[in-house]
Amino acid sequence: MSFKVLNKSGFARRGELVTKTGNIQTPVFMPVGTYGTVKGLTPEHLKDIGFEIILGNAFHLYLRPGLEVIKEFDGLHNFMAWDRSILTDSGGFQVWSLQELRKITEEGVKFKSPLDGSEIFLTPEDSIQTQLTLNADIIMTFDECTTYPSTPSQAKKSMDLTHRWASRCKEYFNKHRKGHLLFGIVQGGMHHELREESLNFMSDQDFDGIALGGLSVGEPKEEKTKILRHLAPLMPEDKPHYVMGVGTPEELVEGVRYGIDMFDCVIPTRNARNGFIYTSTGILKIRNSVHKKSTKPIDEHCECYTCKNFSRAYMHHLDKANEILASTLMSICSLYTFNKLMQDMRSAIEENKFEEFVDSFYDMRDLKKPKL
Amino acid sequence: MSFKVLNKSGFARRGELVTKTGNIQTPVFMPVGTYGTVKGLTPEHLKDIGFEIILGNAFHLYLRPGLEVIKEFDGLHNFMAWDRSILTDSGGFQVWSLQELRKITEEGVKFKSPLDGSEIFLTPEDSIQTQLTLNADIIMTFDECTTYPSTPSQAKKSMDLTHRWASRCKEYFNKHRKGHLLFGIVQGGMHHELREESLNFMSDQDFDGIALGGLSVGEPKEEKTKILRHLAPLMPEDKPHYVMGVGTPEELVEGVRYGIDMFDCVIPTRNARNGFIYTSTGILKIRNSVHKKSTKPIDEHCECYTCKNFSRAYMHHLDKANEILASTLMSICSLYTFNKLMQDMRSAIEENKFEEFVDSFYDMRDLKKPKL
Repeated sequence: MSFKVLNKSGFARRGELVTKTGNIQTPVFMPVGTYGTVKGLTPEHLKDIGFEIILGNAFHLYLRPGLEVIKEFDGLHNFMAWDRSILTDSGGFQVWSLQELRKITEEGVKFKSPLDGSEIFLTPEDSIQTQLTLNADIIMTFDECTTYPSTPSQAKKSMDLTHRWASRCKEYFNKHRKGHLLFGIVQGGMHHELREESLNFMSDQDFDGIALGGLSVGEPKEEKTKILRHLAPLMPEDKPHYVMGVGTPEELVEGVRYGIDMFDCVIPTRNARNGFIYTSTGILKIRNSVHKKSTKPIDEHCECYTCKNFSRAYMHHLDKANEILASTLMSICSLYTFNKLMQDMRSAIEENKFEEFVDSFYDMRDLKKPKL
Repeated sequence: MSFKVLNKSGFARRGELVTKTGNIQTPVFMPVGTYGTVKGLTPEHLKDIGFEIILGNAFHLYLRPGLEVIKEFDGLHNFMAWDRSILTDSGGFQVWSLQELRKITEEGVKFKSPLDGSEIFLTPEDSIQTQLTLNADIIMTFDECTTYPSTPSQAKKSMDLTHRWASRCKEYFNKHRKGHLLFGIVQGGMHHELREESLNFMSDQDFDGIALGGLSVGEPKEEKTKILRHLAPLMPEDKPHYVMGVGTPEELVEGVRYGIDMFDCVIPTRNARNGFIYTSTGILKIRNSVHKKSTKPIDEHCECYTCKNFSRAYMHHLDKANEILASTLMSICSLYTFNKLMQDMRSAIEENKFEEFVDSFYDMRDLKKPKL
């Protein structure tokens, strides 16, 4: 068994996931390293913060640097000098985001390379092969991400294709796996009965983990919450639950409340690069002129490298002068905040005081705690 | 005495410079941190490489973030979290580079801010005051950098103004110094007799160090070498010799051969950001497609963080994908190479084998050693 639930507090779970590379304490947030680098950070920065797993994008890495390069390194770990775990996204979401540039058939997806316009055909088997070549610890099935909004019949058609592709992925994967784990992706749009059907399908296939896809496609937050609420009691207890592309600190807390174990999102790094830094009490807008002379750290409660060494005034200045170091230092603080939030949630679950933690989380932000 | 020559080998000197902040082993190369950051590197990166002093630009920092910000931190060290020595350039060179945007009078320089077009008037006293507010360890006199080419009379007029300004700088400095050091800047264009006159002037004023300015203004390399050769036997023995804005590894070696103790230049970092990485055997062009699949480090003889952890293929990929991390990692390697070169020169001088070192330096690059 690669996954073990250690403690529970309501739906919230404190667990441990074992990959071929290492152990991961859950609930966990995974920083996104699209092109084989979490933008602006060295592997040492990521380790100092405490991350045990990062995410890579099979689609992007397939295009650049290309698998013939990755093969020379026996995978992404050696290529990027990251010796902890890696989860790769299958490319389904990225193909979806190409919109009119792609054509989907039963066999796979035809699309034009966003880099050079050349025509590429990707099948579910290709995606798994790519992820095996990347030698990711956790591999995702190739799904058709359902567009928002969708009618029930559109969503069902898309979901059924995702299910057939998931079976093909599993068959190919089983022939070639060497300690890798494969997660199935639940689709079904915002339609509860379809989501339930998709979850049952993925649970029956005995994947190593269950992912919820199609929940960062422009839908209102309440729709996402309703899906999580509906599925929480139905998720298989013994498998890790991963909600893809999510989210803000509030969404992480809500996710864990509904039994989610894994998250990934670009927002801590992307927002930081644009001057919106996540802190223990909310977002600090470093471009605000009020910080111009401030000798305070970004977050007085934060123990990250940036907050231990630098001031708001310095970060304000670096950001204004478009200095590379601004992106690095602000991303460190944001990611530290996300990782610390997960640590705090893990501790709260261990003590079976998770709802108390949620109370204080919303209190600190002057927000109303949503009902479960 | 703030400076001590420990060993000599020909004109080359192995020395130690003591500032209010720390000790600096010379000959030394100082990385440039124009806006309070050596682009892309944290202070820890710089310390790991081994740098004991960096350069800041009074002119840039005066404009952004402005002295009212720096004052809140009692200087640049605290502002940028750098607890080793800092030398600040006076702004003379930067004002020179504004060309037609500035007007020079006996009193000082009037120019339009390149940031917002506002009119600014800077005197030699202002420059020293700025550098004292930055609390730099080593402060430079405010000079008029002589344009290349210049007639003897143009160069003399410019030099005489630089001398009068140097005296004003010294007078202002002496009233306010608190452990700071002040270096005088020799001008005189490419005219040997003027250079000699300027050197004698600066030597007589008993500055803490002698800098050669106006030697990175577009002149041919041979002209620069001739100036160094002419001045080498005339430089005051007991003062550190600093040639400003220089240079390539070859120029550093030639400089040390002519008794220069201190250097600064943007090329290791600027070139690295553009894919030209300095290594122990010359420049590696990382954009060359030959590196696409190379598992070798940038420099097999290099002990820097980048070479110990990453491959040419990874650097080629990061550079191609315009990843921030490319700038950071390539700059680390280039700066390590520069610092290692200085270390090796210091060792060679200690052993009184400097010319042997110079021989092997040129041999390794298949270059002909220039005559002294």
